Amino acid sequence: MAGRKAVEVYLDLLSQPCRAVQIFLRSTKIPHTVKLVAIRKGENRTPEFTGLNPMQKVPVMVDNGFVLTESDAILKYLATKYDVPDHWYPRHAERRAKVNEYTAWHHTNTRPHAAKVFILEVLLPRMMGQPIEPEKVQKALVELSGTLDKLEGMFLKRQPFLCGDDISLADLLAICEIMQPLGGGRDILQDRPKLLSWRSRVQSALKDSFDEAHTVLYRLRDKSKAKL
Amino acid sequence: MAGRKAVEVYLDLLSQPCRAVQIFLRSTKIPHTVKLVAIRKGENRTPEFTGLNPMQKVPVMVDNGFVLTESDAILKYLATKYDVPDHWYPRHAERRAKVNEYTAWHHTNTRPHAAKVFILEVLLPRMMGQPIEPEKVQKALVELSGTLDKLEGMFLKRQPFLCGDDISLADLLAICEIMQPLGGGRDILQDRPKLLSWRSRVQSALKDSFDEAHTVLYRLRDKSKAKL
Repeated sequence: MAGRKAVEVYLDLLSQPCRAVQIFLRSTKIPHTVKLVAIRKGENRTPEFTGLNPMQKVPVMVDNGFVLTESDAILKYLATKYDVPDHWYPRHAERRAKVNEYTAWHHTNTRPHAAKVFILEVLLPRMMGQPIEPEKVQKALVELSGTLDKLEGMFLKRQPFLCGDDISLADLLAICEIMQPLGGGRDILQDRPKLLSWRSRVQSALKDSFDEAHTVLYRLRDKSKAKL
Repeated sequence: MAGRKAVEVYLDLLSQPCRAVQIFLRSTKIPHTVKLVAIRKGENRTPEFTGLNPMQKVPVMVDNGFVLTESDAILKYLATKYDVPDHWYPRHAERRAKVNEYTAWHHTNTRPHAAKVFILEVLLPRMMGQPIEPEKVQKALVELSGTLDKLEGMFLKRQPFLCGDDISLADLLAICEIMQPLGGGRDILQDRPKLLSWRSRVQSALKDSFDEAHTVLYRLRDKSKAKL
């Protein structure tokens, strides 16, 4: 890939899918530059950024002039365009299909259900000055619990990672969502030994890139704890 | 592929993603057998079906013993495993990435927003005996309108199909969702000439397989109209 410009990514590391993109780039050592877009400061609504992504959302990737949005699509593009280990997004049709099966499911399960808890416990109280509504949090936790049951009882039933024997894009997208409620001091995997072991395996596979991408979230967690 | 068993798919044709799978199989002439699973009769909760898919959802595909759920994953698997025209899911990395970008977006936009209108106008009144709640329908229509604006103003801005010059899996998944509110007699593309032209192009590309998969929905529409 001599002569290619490094991949550019526009990220806010408080966004779960942005962290997945950053961790993937760091883990696979694909040459890249990160441009931070602070959503809380409205940097996603500037004319420049809107020109790049009219949806005003992060992450955005630019690879030699090719602009792509949606973390799911960005990760799959990078995994196939660059020479990364096959386990991330296997070439074998059936194994790839299992990764696509999880990621499709992810969009309407793991992602919204974990995000909801964070929104109710952290975002709304901080940004809108609203008090936490315990009944709404409780309802969101019940929904999330159903999703965690499925991760344990179906995806991880007979294998160490969500889609097989090694880490894939599925685990990466999932772990970043599952970490998010920690920003409000809540570890949603407490009392879930099977998912806790999975998280340890994922963290080991990702090495330093995992904690590095989560630094901002850890800072938020520490602030939440100090307030209690 | 001599000696291979035909692909088996488990479908309820009142489900949008199931129609997408059926249309794809018919259009591409992949040898297949359809097994109908009537959700309204609880056929998705039988022990046999639950054994096949513990999530109790349709569609499910079985290809020579390989079981796969999630329409998005099924369509991409079929398009890469079988020898279908490239436009459905292009091999070219950037073009494939654009299809993945739309399908990722689809799960949290076109799909839930069009489905919501159908649920409020058809499913809840019929199945739960609840009257239609006009305020909720109005709110759902406003959300859906935002999604239709993006389909017109972003995806179709400079091209005849959602991801380029020819029909892809993106158009197929989208059209099946956009048709759904018709079951309650509502054509959500009325007064949207750009999307109406797109729908005509999609229908022409799909030929008979489109109307064939929508027969059950057309019957529901005719019943809804008769009631008015």
